[in-house]
Amino acid sequence: MITPGELIQLVSPKGKRYLRVFDPEEELHTHDGKLKLKDICELTYGQCIASHLGRNYKVLKPSLYDLLKSIERKTQIIYPKEIGYILLKLGIGPGSRVIEAGCGSGALTMALAWFVGDQGKVYSFERRPEFKTLCVKNLTRVGLLHRVELQEKDIEEGFAVEGADAVFIDVRTPWDYLDQVLCAVKNGHPFGFLLPTMNQVARLLAALEAKPCTDTEVLEILLRRYKPVPERLRPEDRMVAHTGFLIFSRAQR
Amino acid sequence: MITPGELIQLVSPKGKRYLRVFDPEEELHTHDGKLKLKDICELTYGQCIASHLGRNYKVLKPSLYDLLKSIERKTQIIYPKEIGYILLKLGIGPGSRVIEAGCGSGALTMALAWFVGDQGKVYSFERRPEFKTLCVKNLTRVGLLHRVELQEKDIEEGFAVEGADAVFIDVRTPWDYLDQVLCAVKNGHPFGFLLPTMNQVARLLAALEAKPCTDTEVLEILLRRYKPVPERLRPEDRMVAHTGFLIFSRAQR
Amino acid sequence: MITPGELIQLVSPKGKRYLRVFDPEEELHTHDGKLKLKDICELTYGQCIASHLGRNYKVLKPSLYDLLKSIERKTQIIYPKEIGYILLKLGIGPGSRVIEAGCGSGALTMALAWFVGDQGKVYSFERRPEFKTLCVKNLTRVGLLHRVELQEKDIEEGFAVEGADAVFIDVRTPWDYLDQVLCAVKNGHPFGFLLPTMNQVARLLAALEAKPCTDTEVLEILLRRYKPVPERLRPEDRMVAHTGFLIFSRAQR
Amino acid sequence: MITPGELIQLVSPKGKRYLRVFDPEEELHTHDGKLKLKDICELTYGQCIASHLGRNYKVLKPSLYDLLKSIERKTQIIYPKEIGYILLKLGIGPGSRVIEAGCGSGALTMALAWFVGDQGKVYSFERRPEFKTLCVKNLTRVGLLHRVELQEKDIEEGFAVEGADAVFIDVRTPWDYLDQVLCAVKNGHPFGFLLPTMNQVARLLAALEAKPCTDTEVLEILLRRYKPVPERLRPEDRMVAHTGFLIFSRAQR
Repeated sequence: MITPGELIQLVSPKGKRYLRVFDPEEELHTHDGKLKLKDICELTYGQCIASHLGRNYKVLKPSLYDLLKSIERKTQIIYPKEIGYILLKLGIGPGSRVIEAGCGSGALTMALAWFVGDQGKVYSFERRPEFKTLCVKNLTRVGLLHRVELQEKDIEEGFAVEGADAVFIDVRTPWDYLDQVLCAVKNGHPFGFLLPTMNQVARLLAALEAKPCTDTEVLEILLRRYKPVPERLRPEDRMVAHTGFLIFSRAQR
Repeated sequence: MITPGELIQLVSPKGKRYLRVFDPEEELHTHDGKLKLKDICELTYGQCIASHLGRNYKVLKPSLYDLLKSIERKTQIIYPKEIGYILLKLGIGPGSRVIEAGCGSGALTMALAWFVGDQGKVYSFERRPEFKTLCVKNLTRVGLLHRVELQEKDIEEGFAVEGADAVFIDVRTPWDYLDQVLCAVKNGHPFGFLLPTMNQVARLLAALEAKPCTDTEVLEILLRRYKPVPERLRPEDRMVAHTGFLIFSRAQR
Repeated sequence: MITPGELIQLVSPKGKRYLRVFDPEEELHTHDGKLKLKDICELTYGQCIASHLGRNYKVLKPSLYDLLKSIERKTQIIYPKEIGYILLKLGIGPGSRVIEAGCGSGALTMALAWFVGDQGKVYSFERRPEFKTLCVKNLTRVGLLHRVELQEKDIEEGFAVEGADAVFIDVRTPWDYLDQVLCAVKNGHPFGFLLPTMNQVARLLAALEAKPCTDTEVLEILLRRYKPVPERLRPEDRMVAHTGFLIFSRAQR
Repeated sequence: MITPGELIQLVSPKGKRYLRVFDPEEELHTHDGKLKLKDICELTYGQCIASHLGRNYKVLKPSLYDLLKSIERKTQIIYPKEIGYILLKLGIGPGSRVIEAGCGSGALTMALAWFVGDQGKVYSFERRPEFKTLCVKNLTRVGLLHRVELQEKDIEEGFAVEGADAVFIDVRTPWDYLDQVLCAVKNGHPFGFLLPTMNQVARLLAALEAKPCTDTEVLEILLRRYKPVPERLRPEDRMVAHTGFLIFSRAQR
């Protein structure tokens, strides 16, 4: 049974997806007619509800991947292919206390909040009010805001957090904030960056060399999809060629 | 302060890495001489202890990435680049109940155990006793065995688990076990596969088409590393070209 | 000086490209006004001619790459990234006698005709009249038709050519024509195939194993472009993920 | 029939390859015993000759790809995947007059000499005497030296060639020689570069922006091989991740 407060995903006959915290009082107005969400109470995931025009909508369990896809975005977001790797490199898990700066639309924020669980905490910093608002909206919609402490401020003054398990920085000039990062992250612990251009990567690497850091790495991740047709299996025609370079390092004071 | 029972990582002057659950009574015998681990009690991560020959070993906080790298392996393991993506697609998080079959050396098992937290559970199945033993050893060493219920049995008889949040199958002929997967996973929830050859992917896709599934996807993930030299930034000369194809789908009964 | 009969490329202020065999009598009608091509007689490449509305068009020397880009196409064409590699693997050079089947729009035909020179010959086979016509048009426009013997026929009956230096086959079921290929190509010489799907590749490989062949290879070529901005160097956002798999082998009777 | 003076390729039972200009007087001493090459006179390509120990060596027609693979190298060479693309972008063909600087071991030199034919000419420049010697040796062995004018000199003084159809530069600081390139290549014609690091690419792009150039492009080419096993089709485990970035531009004075 699907209970109120759970995250649900509705898929239209044409594949359009709607993501909601399930509220039985809600009515969803679509091109296929009106859906009374209280009908969902009697279903399991994988089953369908009908609109008042008789069109069937599948009710599926959203994975974190689905949540990330559903984000309302005003910026280039970090993709799932990068997010998964970031989590492993930063050692994020239930109970982690992690700092993130440059939330943008909140994709990484959402993933961090998902994995730290109710025992963990995400400290997020965003300078631009319109992105902070968007981030709050995206986190609220999926019920993860309570795990995030979201501050609208420039990180130049520092994070006012100490002993973070990990830090991730997604801003244009990260080399300006390395002292702040090293001050906030626990010694011997990992931190990371996402940067779109090679020039930024070179500049960041030079700055890291001047700081007490170790284990510095640079990499990029590519994802290639295939058309899932068993008798004509082949890659899709086009793919994303670049989102950004990932840089990881570790404090060693 | 580093407390007994924590996972620690020791890095030798030449970069060799040792991963341990910290036991102050332990002595580590290395090419650089003997290390008394009780010296670590007075350190923070990022600092060094000296061997009896005066060689400095860094003590770093291992991330999940480090744990996965340290695995003793007798099989091709699933790489972090795939693991991160699998987590997101399967919606794994604190509290998840997930089934995995074909543990091999236990890399994915370890990652799943890491992320489900103490409220979650990983149900793992491995047919070959030598791999089960190896898996137990790898999980024990990093203190994650208590979150895993590891059974040595063929999955042909089914999983004897119901209502799993997600399932991941890494066996040679996954098309033989689709009924068992669909029986074990909650309706509307995701499951996935890793397969090395195109022929297997084609055969699995054909089998999935005959089952009540939706949202089937095929993809592969590539990771390219760069030499982290700011004034001569360039990709490394060689890279891994293939580990396997990932296939995801979702039960829709 | 640019002489009549040479291939020229005109580039509009907005980057639109026109490819021509230079005829001083021609007038080109464009959105920027009329260009009298006889003005080109007094120029060198790299200079500009003005339209009657005073807009400047650059006159550039087209490379083979430009010719291939300008092809009028009704099919998926083989890309320059594949064509260059095919040439090297097949050993094409001035004087080569090469067979090609499945001309499509004539991209590979054009490249082969370019490289075999006036001493060589390209024997091309195309079953569908509309593609043969298109191929003739594309080759005529760049002045290379005289090096090509283009036949509209099914290759099931064979090529009626013997002792070819190399063969390239771009048809849907190449495994049906291996005897014809082996009959036409000189012993010990190379031949190749382009195929879009994995299923086709597997089927072709199985068929090749039953024939007197050696040195069989399968590969694919990916090209990633960068934005040529010195202070913000980064890959383009998207790229072609797949055109086809290349298969090469060699007759060994 | 195979005639003296032709390029031939001998393949041992274990796959070792020998490349020769066929001289019937030659005896080849191998681990499998002595081969009298005059026995080849009675063969066609694809057939075998036996060593005095009775081991069979296949005689195959080498393609340009095979010649490039056989090069004796003391430097990182340009790979066939790049060479094929360079040829198309530079518009090389029978009769071309092309300048190349930084021959290294002579891989690109060989490919250019192959394609320009006897009517064309390759002007090659190499500063270091040991590489010039190696280059001469590699070109002589495959019978292509007569198409190359190879000079041991620094290109700072210029090429002393005018009106080249194309130029390719493979040196460490190409930005130092742009005036020389622009002076040597015909206006409106293409030229190119190979550079291993991003820093060099950024610096070259900045230098090109200050010169009368157009159509500047940056790209890289990746090649992925598959194991040619029809029932277990999959990419090879590892691949070359980087040889260099290709940069192309065109003179527009």
